[in-house]
Amino acid sequence: MVSLTRRLGALVVLAVVLVALPALAETPAKVVATIASPAGTLALRVELDGEGRPAYAVTRRGAEVIAPSRLGFLFTDAPKMERGFTLAGQSSRTVDETWEQPWGEWRTIANHFNELRVRLKEKAGAARELDVVFRVYDDGVGFRYEFPDQPQLKTARIADELTEFAVAGPGAASAEAWWIPGGEWNRYEYLYQHTRLDAVAQAHTPLTIRLADGTHIALHEAALVDYSSMWLRRVEGTRLKAVLSPGAQGPKVVRAAPFTTPWRTLIFADSAGGLYQSHLELNLNEPNKLGDVSWFTPQKFVGVWWEMHLDHSTWSTGRKHGATTANVRRYVDFAAANGIPGVLVEGWNVGWDGQWFGNGNDFDFKRPTPDLDLPGVAAYAKARGVGIIGHHETGGGVSHYESQLGAALDYAQGLGIGVIKTGYVADAGQVERVDPDGTTLREWHDGQWMARHHLLVVTEAAKRHIAIDSHEPIKDTGLRRTYPNWVAREGARGMEYNAWGEPKNPPNHEATLAFTRMLSGPMDFTPGVVSLRGKGDTPIASTLAKQLALYVVLYSPVQMLADLPENYAKYPDALAFIKAVPVDWSDTRVPNGEVGQYATFARKDRRGDDWYVGSVGDDQPRTLTVTLDFLDAGRDYTAHIYRDGPNADWHTDGHPMIVETRTVHQGDTLTLPLARGGGAAVQLVAGKGR
Amino acid sequence: MVSLTRRLGALVVLAVVLVALPALAETPAKVVATIASPAGTLALRVELDGEGRPAYAVTRRGAEVIAPSRLGFLFTDAPKMERGFTLAGQSSRTVDETWEQPWGEWRTIANHFNELRVRLKEKAGAARELDVVFRVYDDGVGFRYEFPDQPQLKTARIADELTEFAVAGPGAASAEAWWIPGGEWNRYEYLYQHTRLDAVAQAHTPLTIRLADGTHIALHEAALVDYSSMWLRRVEGTRLKAVLSPGAQGPKVVRAAPFTTPWRTLIFADSAGGLYQSHLELNLNEPNKLGDVSWFTPQKFVGVWWEMHLDHSTWSTGRKHGATTANVRRYVDFAAANGIPGVLVEGWNVGWDGQWFGNGNDFDFKRPTPDLDLPGVAAYAKARGVGIIGHHETGGGVSHYESQLGAALDYAQGLGIGVIKTGYVADAGQVERVDPDGTTLREWHDGQWMARHHLLVVTEAAKRHIAIDSHEPIKDTGLRRTYPNWVAREGARGMEYNAWGEPKNPPNHEATLAFTRMLSGPMDFTPGVVSLRGKGDTPIASTLAKQLALYVVLYSPVQMLADLPENYAKYPDALAFIKAVPVDWSDTRVPNGEVGQYATFARKDRRGDDWYVGSVGDDQPRTLTVTLDFLDAGRDYTAHIYRDGPNADWHTDGHPMIVETRTVHQGDTLTLPLARGGGAAVQLVAGKGR
Repeated sequence: MVSLTRRLGALVVLAVVLVALPALAETPAKVVATIASPAGTLALRVELDGEGRPAYAVTRRGAEVIAPSRLGFLFTDAPKMERGFTLAGQSSRTVDETWEQPWGEWRTIANHFNELRVRLKEKAGAARELDVVFRVYDDGVGFRYEFPDQPQLKTARIADELTEFAVAGPGAASAEAWWIPGGEWNRYEYLYQHTRLDAVAQAHTPLTIRLADGTHIALHEAALVDYSSMWLRRVEGTRLKAVLSPGAQGPKVVRAAPFTTPWRTLIFADSAGGLYQSHLELNLNEPNKLGDVSWFTPQKFVGVWWEMHLDHSTWSTGRKHGATTANVRRYVDFAAANGIPGVLVEGWNVGWDGQWFGNGNDFDFKRPTPDLDLPGVAAYAKARGVGIIGHHETGGGVSHYESQLGAALDYAQGLGIGVIKTGYVADAGQVERVDPDGTTLREWHDGQWMARHHLLVVTEAAKRHIAIDSHEPIKDTGLRRTYPNWVAREGARGMEYNAWGEPKNPPNHEATLAFTRMLSGPMDFTPGVVSLRGKGDTPIASTLAKQLALYVVLYSPVQMLADLPENYAKYPDALAFIKAVPVDWSDTRVPNGEVGQYATFARKDRRGDDWYVGSVGDDQPRTLTVTLDFLDAGRDYTAHIYRDGPNADWHTDGHPMIVETRTVHQGDTLTLPLARGGGAAVQLVAGKGR
Repeated sequence: MVSLTRRLGALVVLAVVLVALPALAETPAKVVATIASPAGTLALRVELDGEGRPAYAVTRRGAEVIAPSRLGFLFTDAPKMERGFTLAGQSSRTVDETWEQPWGEWRTIANHFNELRVRLKEKAGAARELDVVFRVYDDGVGFRYEFPDQPQLKTARIADELTEFAVAGPGAASAEAWWIPGGEWNRYEYLYQHTRLDAVAQAHTPLTIRLADGTHIALHEAALVDYSSMWLRRVEGTRLKAVLSPGAQGPKVVRAAPFTTPWRTLIFADSAGGLYQSHLELNLNEPNKLGDVSWFTPQKFVGVWWEMHLDHSTWSTGRKHGATTANVRRYVDFAAANGIPGVLVEGWNVGWDGQWFGNGNDFDFKRPTPDLDLPGVAAYAKARGVGIIGHHETGGGVSHYESQLGAALDYAQGLGIGVIKTGYVADAGQVERVDPDGTTLREWHDGQWMARHHLLVVTEAAKRHIAIDSHEPIKDTGLRRTYPNWVAREGARGMEYNAWGEPKNPPNHEATLAFTRMLSGPMDFTPGVVSLRGKGDTPIASTLAKQLALYVVLYSPVQMLADLPENYAKYPDALAFIKAVPVDWSDTRVPNGEVGQYATFARKDRRGDDWYVGSVGDDQPRTLTVTLDFLDAGRDYTAHIYRDGPNADWHTDGHPMIVETRTVHQGDTLTLPLARGGGAAVQLVAGKGR
């Protein structure tokens, strides 16, 4: 090999200006730009080393949390952009604003950051330019690359992104991480691993990290538009590096300049709950592009779904077909009787009777099965104040789905369908793409081509006032701000793994999700299996009270009552809470939480002054205390407390539940005893006093 | 998502035969084929799980060392091959043979294995077939995929290989690993990391592993021909997975069927030395395709090289140009005076005066610089029994080099050049490929395109009786067996890092290389810096005795005397050993060694009965004992022992060296005291008695 010295030996003759450059690692990097957050909590600096390699670093309250971390790109058809840069310019600005979510966890969102823009320019060769824009909040940093329009780089064919995240500080060497493997066949549906940060292999984001001093860090991205998802591969120690999801044609991303990448985001907090409270991801997305979206109403739904997972019925037609006229009517009746606005119908259409998994080319998104009078059922439902939730399972046959997309959405709209659950059941890397010339390619669920596909579906659906709930999705990066009809996703192990998973979700799964997957946005987890039983009458790792808590802990504007109607009839107390709990909120707090151990969320009903509290735990009995400091001063609240009974234990019987009602006030402390696999749910009804 | 249950719900109607399949992870895998090694030390089984996913597993002396590990492929244009397989057939055979290396560490190589061939066939869809061939030795396993000729798969466009290596056994959870990061910019030139196996991120091979019970494992590949190099990415725990080096056009590998992949190799041993003693890699390569290669003679060489790394001279022309007629003659004189057959001349040709790093398109491989009379110097050398070692630095401009390749080799042949050192100094992922249609692409040093390039160079060179010593190479996979003129490579941090590395090579670097990089084949490390000084008179982490030991420890059939002629004049004792030590051996033993701590190698001169012993250590003083059980019984040997003096210590002064001569016999024990950064070298001259 060769050192810079050797290169310099060659360069010295013609490029006298470079003579002063010593060898690579000997060069102290030079700070070329700095920016601090509004309150000064975070500070970011941009450096250039002696070879002109740019890096950024972050301090929090004066201590380094991100050591100098490289920036740059590899291309398939051009030299990389990674070194040889000078600073061609910089500028900064401040934004301090608030905006309102049409639906969500918080009504108003504050957006207050200081922005630094640096323009990097190559000193030699093609002299290409690259902007990096940093937005520094008190609770985190977002940065993105902006490729200017330039004759030397009309089209960027990105082989990979070289962005690094070098976690630093005294606690880094023994930091913990919670992660799922990125780039594996089962997409995002893995049990979370809890390891040392320096034992992470290749992870999806959000990646949640806890330093030894209690600092929590979440690494993720925002506004993933027309680009490939970022995985994080550990290079060595606690240094992570972006790896873009593959593209079948060579480049992982192809874009014409000018364009911007998604934001790379780093949230810093003193607690797990602090990570959740950050609005960084939403703030880094573009404002609502759809205008008035009042046509979507957050809602609960039931569905012809859990019975298939229990193997009581099938998606396919035949004797056990679930989506028959009679059976769907049964769910409609249950929904109408309980004020549930939606009924999901899976297996309603033609295409389920062959090898659809990873194929999907037999699906017809406009043709119900012969045993289902869908228009009739939809009318039947509508007359009872209930709407059908549509279902578009593609089996990964995405081009096939796109060929029917407009007609399929028209058809759904004609039936009064307001929400469609989409599905992409195929192994990772197996999405079928058929180009106009007939070429068939295999893409990844989270590559650029699918990022484009999902937005196509969402925008086409928006034209028809339909909301989208994507399963086997691309991960959430806050695009619900820009496209508020993209209401929820799967993208993790949901309730279905409690039907047949081997293993099922462990007792601490939801307390892990709360501070990992849920940092990215709403999840259609499908809670509320009050039977606490999966396929073959096998137990699930939950008490009854915990099932109620999930409606508060795991936010989604569409929340399923996943269980069978007949099971809800057996647990009227539980059903009462589930019927009452809202799906739209004006405020959210996280009174306590430790990743993978326990989590308490308090949320305020957007349509009133009531609060709801949900706590979930792990396999340990524990007692959580919640100080009700979020209630209005001087006001009475009637607390309906749904908590684990003294003998509740998911290993034996999770059903014992005590429902207790008492009056509480601001500043009171709720004491919530959690059983093994337990939880607690509290309804705080605002009364007199204001 | 969806479970197999859900899929089965769909399949049950049309595919009754599949009804019995339970859900994925519930299914106990079924063993469909087994094979044991000749002495029964290792046993391998092939399984198919309930979804038809093939896996292999390995036991050693009855205990599992590799847990069931998946097999398969992703394609960019077709569904993956990974599940849905049945066993369509199997066969086995035994081979027990020996063959001879034309040069090497051992004259004869025993090749004794049991082979199992399984044919897998997809049950549905395209019903593609795939063979997996396992060769099970007592010290390891090699397996490869064979794609049969079949109408459903004429061309394989491989997106990635899904081969896994799940290290198992009681010691796996706390196993250690020595590794360098795969897929990073500096190719293979990284300090070895010593971590727990479950903290490996993405590694190059050979990857060396030590289980808690002392079992050593090396994972690597053999016969990397027309395919992309394999990196190993840890998925979770101690489960590793193949990642192929990228290809700029989408697929990482494009091959027309029928074809075979490289062998994936697993060596198992009770000691680090046991790994080195395995001949698995050579055995899994095809026999010599070049016929008589006696035109290549293993040799030592000096060169116009270290002086550039010290910044005394430059590759580029001008006042400091190293490769001038006068300076090259100086090296020729030194070589002639000391019986050294070769003189390397770097910076001899036109092209070094611009930005050649990562570019290389200005290089002219037929035109010496104006200040060098290369034909005259070559004639001068020849008259003195010395040959010129050629140098083809490409700067990563590989298509440019190929455009001159034939003429360049003809030119070298005309000058009597018998060995050419090639160079590919460009960052990883930056090799420039210009296709015939003018398309420019950026490839990886270890991708399929470069695997092809290197063999093009080697075979073109062979036609002209020229040997190749590749720097910034693709890794070694034993192809010297098939192409014995591919004599050595770099592919790790060599001596040059002791000139200018930041940091330099640590004292235990060579004791790490011995059981990591060196498992793959000869390395042109360029030992013998007897000054023990790098650029700016900085110390290197070595004693003088260790520099001598390197000639025995780090095998190469071309070994440099890297230092300046004037420095050798100062250390005549050291020079005496270096002049004497052979570069071709008939036998090799590893009397002791622990990865990264110390290593002792004993090798027998191929041209006689003398033995040579070399030991290297780390930053601890230590005493090694070597039992001379490899000597002939009843014979006198005169031992010339070059060992660290009592005050030797690389931190202060590494030069004190004691040269001791005594008579020894078979079974005697040599006691070798090693200083900090120390080593020992022993010449055992066979005398009377036989």
